[in-house]
Order: sequence, then structure tokens, then C-alpha cells
Amino acid sequence: MSDTTYQVSGMTCGHCATAVTEELLTVAGVTNVAVEVESGFVTITSDAPVSDAAVRAAVEEAGYQVLPA
Amino acid sequence: MSDTTYQVSGMTCGHCATAVTEELLTVAGVTNVAVEVESGFVTITSDAPVSDAAVRAAVEEAGYQVLPA
Repeated sequence: MSDTTYQVSGMTCGHCATAVTEELLTVAGVTNVAVEVESGFVTITSDAPVSDAAVRAAVEEAGYQVLPA
Repeated sequence: MSDTTYQVSGMTCGHCATAVTEELLTVAGVTNVAVEVESGFVTITSDAPVSDAAVRAAVEEAGYQVLPA
């Protein structure tokens, strides 16, 4: 199990956090998602290697952007 | 048919607008809802008299507040 944290821009409320969480939970290997709306920090817990591109695509699908690390 | 505009605080994004719209469409007499997130203006179109208390209750149910007129 490992945690990876991304920073996501554009989330303003709990609905935004829910939208991002729901999309990320569809990514292969992701077992948990924790979102801090204010900072934009999104921490993904996984039980297998997770594709960085898939994470970015899921966040964009929800309508937000992963900031460059 | 008549339009009534309320001002609602706390809406920050399109998801918020959707949540408020969905609740207001359950209020008796309401036929359409238009939300402007930035200003907080929510305009309700109705084909029958609409209870002001029911409007306020629906907005609160969605998690927001109607500002005093």
C-alpha cells in the first residue's frame, strides 16, 4: 500500500471533492482518495502501481487540473 | 407565470448551482430555476404561488442560505 499526493486546482467545495474522489476511485489500483479542498491536495492510496497519466486523466474528467509537481 | 429572484450565499461552483436547482425544482409551483453562481442570484419561475418558506427550506436543504432581501 502506498500514498501519493497530487495538487489539484479549481476545487472550491465539497461537491468538487466528491467529483474528483469518484473519478479517482475508478482508476486501477486506487483504494482510497483523500481530498483537502482548501489546499488542493489530493492523496491517493493504492495497493498496486497507479498510472500517473490515468490519475491526471481522471482529474480532468472530473473538470479539474493536476498542477505540475 | 412569474419570476422571483432570491440571493443565496455560499455557492461556489456549478455543482452548487445544480444542488440548489434540484432542490428548488421539488417545490410546488416551481417550473424553472436559473442560478448565477457568482452573484448568488437565483431566479425562480412559477406557474402558481410559491411559498417563500418552502423556497428557503429547499435552499437550506441543499446546504446554502437565502440572504435577507
